Amino acid sequence: MLKEALSYSDKHREQQLEELKELLSIPSISTDQRSQTGIRRAAEWLAGHLGAIGFTRVEIWATGGHPAVFAEWLGAGPERPTVLVYGHYDVQPTDPLNEWRTPPFTPTVRDNAIYARGAADDKGQLFIHIKAAEAYLRGAGKLPVNLKFIIEGEEEVGSEHLSACVRAHANDLRADAVAISDSHMIAPGTPTVVYGLRGLAYMEVEVTGPSQDLHSGTYGGAVYNPGQALCEIIAQLKDDRGHITIPGFYNRVRPLSEQERELMRQLPFEEARFRAEAGIAGTWGEEGYSVIEQITARPTLEVNGLVSGYTAPGAKTVLPARALAKISMRLVPDQQPQEIAELFEAHVRRLAPPQVKVDVRLLHYGDGALIDLNTPQVQASVRAFEKAFGKAPVFVREGGSIPVVSIFAQTIGCPAVLMGFGLPDDNLHSPNEKFDLGNFYMGIKTIIYFLDEVAR
Amino acid sequence: MLKEALSYSDKHREQQLEELKELLSIPSISTDQRSQTGIRRAAEWLAGHLGAIGFTRVEIWATGGHPAVFAEWLGAGPERPTVLVYGHYDVQPTDPLNEWRTPPFTPTVRDNAIYARGAADDKGQLFIHIKAAEAYLRGAGKLPVNLKFIIEGEEEVGSEHLSACVRAHANDLRADAVAISDSHMIAPGTPTVVYGLRGLAYMEVEVTGPSQDLHSGTYGGAVYNPGQALCEIIAQLKDDRGHITIPGFYNRVRPLSEQERELMRQLPFEEARFRAEAGIAGTWGEEGYSVIEQITARPTLEVNGLVSGYTAPGAKTVLPARALAKISMRLVPDQQPQEIAELFEAHVRRLAPPQVKVDVRLLHYGDGALIDLNTPQVQASVRAFEKAFGKAPVFVREGGSIPVVSIFAQTIGCPAVLMGFGLPDDNLHSPNEKFDLGNFYMGIKTIIYFLDEVAR
Repeated sequence: MLKEALSYSDKHREQQLEELKELLSIPSISTDQRSQTGIRRAAEWLAGHLGAIGFTRVEIWATGGHPAVFAEWLGAGPERPTVLVYGHYDVQPTDPLNEWRTPPFTPTVRDNAIYARGAADDKGQLFIHIKAAEAYLRGAGKLPVNLKFIIEGEEEVGSEHLSACVRAHANDLRADAVAISDSHMIAPGTPTVVYGLRGLAYMEVEVTGPSQDLHSGTYGGAVYNPGQALCEIIAQLKDDRGHITIPGFYNRVRPLSEQERELMRQLPFEEARFRAEAGIAGTWGEEGYSVIEQITARPTLEVNGLVSGYTAPGAKTVLPARALAKISMRLVPDQQPQEIAELFEAHVRRLAPPQVKVDVRLLHYGDGALIDLNTPQVQASVRAFEKAFGKAPVFVREGGSIPVVSIFAQTIGCPAVLMGFGLPDDNLHSPNEKFDLGNFYMGIKTIIYFLDEVAR
Repeated sequence: MLKEALSYSDKHREQQLEELKELLSIPSISTDQRSQTGIRRAAEWLAGHLGAIGFTRVEIWATGGHPAVFAEWLGAGPERPTVLVYGHYDVQPTDPLNEWRTPPFTPTVRDNAIYARGAADDKGQLFIHIKAAEAYLRGAGKLPVNLKFIIEGEEEVGSEHLSACVRAHANDLRADAVAISDSHMIAPGTPTVVYGLRGLAYMEVEVTGPSQDLHSGTYGGAVYNPGQALCEIIAQLKDDRGHITIPGFYNRVRPLSEQERELMRQLPFEEARFRAEAGIAGTWGEEGYSVIEQITARPTLEVNGLVSGYTAPGAKTVLPARALAKISMRLVPDQQPQEIAELFEAHVRRLAPPQVKVDVRLLHYGDGALIDLNTPQVQASVRAFEKAFGKAPVFVREGGSIPVVSIFAQTIGCPAVLMGFGLPDDNLHSPNEKFDLGNFYMGIKTIIYFLDEVAR
């Protein structure tokens, strides 16, 4: 079965790429109200595709928000394990549009990579699992395990309705492991198993002053400027050693063990490459921690957006009525997103000058996770990586957040296996997102091995 | 001559309002590249109108930017004085559009005021002079003085080309006084002569960090966030007593004399009304100065705009590549705008963390002015106010900037007379700009008296 699947996959590379392009050309931006059509089309395209390659039950599930796609093939029989694949078909917004070399929804191959919004996050990585399943179903007529897919459309906006959806369909989704490819390898050619994910609390802070925009010549000098107040608040959220100043913020942070820090030191992480990818001359972060610790194992706070007053070209002498910031915090075990959001809000209120009004909103949040590396499922992924890449994977904590890992753990109690095929310079959430085609094909091969290994 | 003009004006109030509506309906936003047609139409409408009411020479002058309208009537003869009226036909942008009760270019009368962008700043006030001239020319067949108009289209973007235009046409513009109505009365029913104007230095600060927007989960924690850096810079531009921290900023500021402070204390300025107009619960400003001193006689620094990263509804976990602020400073005698811009830039560069790049640009600037109250022209305006309003005017310094006052003083050496008919709550530069119709008609009457008085 394995041999036929590998051979089928090898012979259909061109078709795999063409189909991926189809999926990538659908503008399924979840945060954008104008993209409702793209969201719907992406869900329907995936459902149609999963049905066409041999899944026997395919459904589009309504949620309180964007729909989720479900598919299953149970032909391996009840005595074989069941793998559930999670992925998401929604993508990030595309702005600033003018910085894309080719349009975000016109998938384009250059330098052996495919460029498009969602190429790596997550359509391309999700598609690896679909093509691995197809290789078995069409190449060998069957899969070595029972296989299910749950593909949501709200990952980029916090998976707001996923938890309720998973709970409502807990029986349909029952599985022995949930496999997720929505992360990246630490370096090209280095297979990587992610065992830690950070949580997230995404806040919006709105400072309001005068009841309307004012003439800065007539009122300036005697009215507390909301733009100024917002800047003063943000400037006080970190001290000059990079520590976050929110009282209680670090209380629950599980300290890094010396053993874990040693493992991190041994990872093939190159600061020079990190700086080159980010396009910066020098790094800056929390004092006392290395860059890899800062970006994966320590909590962070970042300004994601700022807007106030007049922002078009030219000059307008306005004293703005309001100023808004989007600020998100990445959290580590055992920080609780909702508790952190409350601490954040209390701190911001304390920092705000009394002359302005401040509203603090929790826009979305997710729990972090630490995964047990000793489960048979994770061990199967290790063997699959060894067979496909010819080398053992490294184990890393990931800076980003995949809140669904804890959702699946809490609702259907099944362990996660995170096998990422992205690269650090894939420009996720940025212009010119890409996915390396070598990793795309190697990913399909790895998942074919994984399904074989997990069946043993 | 005076009697006929007053009578003609009284009889044509309806027509005066209808014509003002025509002018206000032209969208002549100078800062907006898409408004070129509106700019052109406003200039042509004014030139046509001035010709129709009897001006014998009317021209549209090209400048390096938006055109200026010139008109003259020299029928009073060389032995009579010549008054030059300055005004501007360009208007501020209209955003945020959704806060307008009626569309900005659909002039609408409610509560005895006309609502439209430019109603008070400056089309409505400029139109007072045109209608006063018409009252003489059509009511009496002639004016008591020679009269010229220079109406520019770039006041709201810093009058960039006016200085060169005035120099090039210095001979055409020769006059004994320049009359300007582009300011406001300190309170309803209180005629006001402005004798001080603040200068302006309008800056743009752009902070650049990574070469492109980054994923805040993958890079956050080890990259200096340009939004954070911008906030830190801005937060340090003022201390907690409201003083501006730029070294050297106050060096040339002429201290307020005790006499001038006493005059200000006697002005009918009500802080409660100021707070109500601004829609704020409490004022805040430079320690040691009263509100009226803060907004008219002391230099200020205000954030006019902020933008960075993701600003649309919802969440995007981006670490922005850049952050931009628009920041303007109002200056008092004897501060020099270009020197202040240099001090500002040096200070911002010192405050910026070394991990980011910072660009500082001077977008536009203008000199402030203090006007001698003892010129015969200013004294003529005092008598005109007394006759029209039945009470003597108060003398105030104005918080805003009319850079052209010093341009006329420097290029054609003629003194300015500032007779404002706006009100403090006219919402200049804000949604729902208005102009009180009582002041519109009273303004025409005042200018009719003024032209008679200045001829004596």
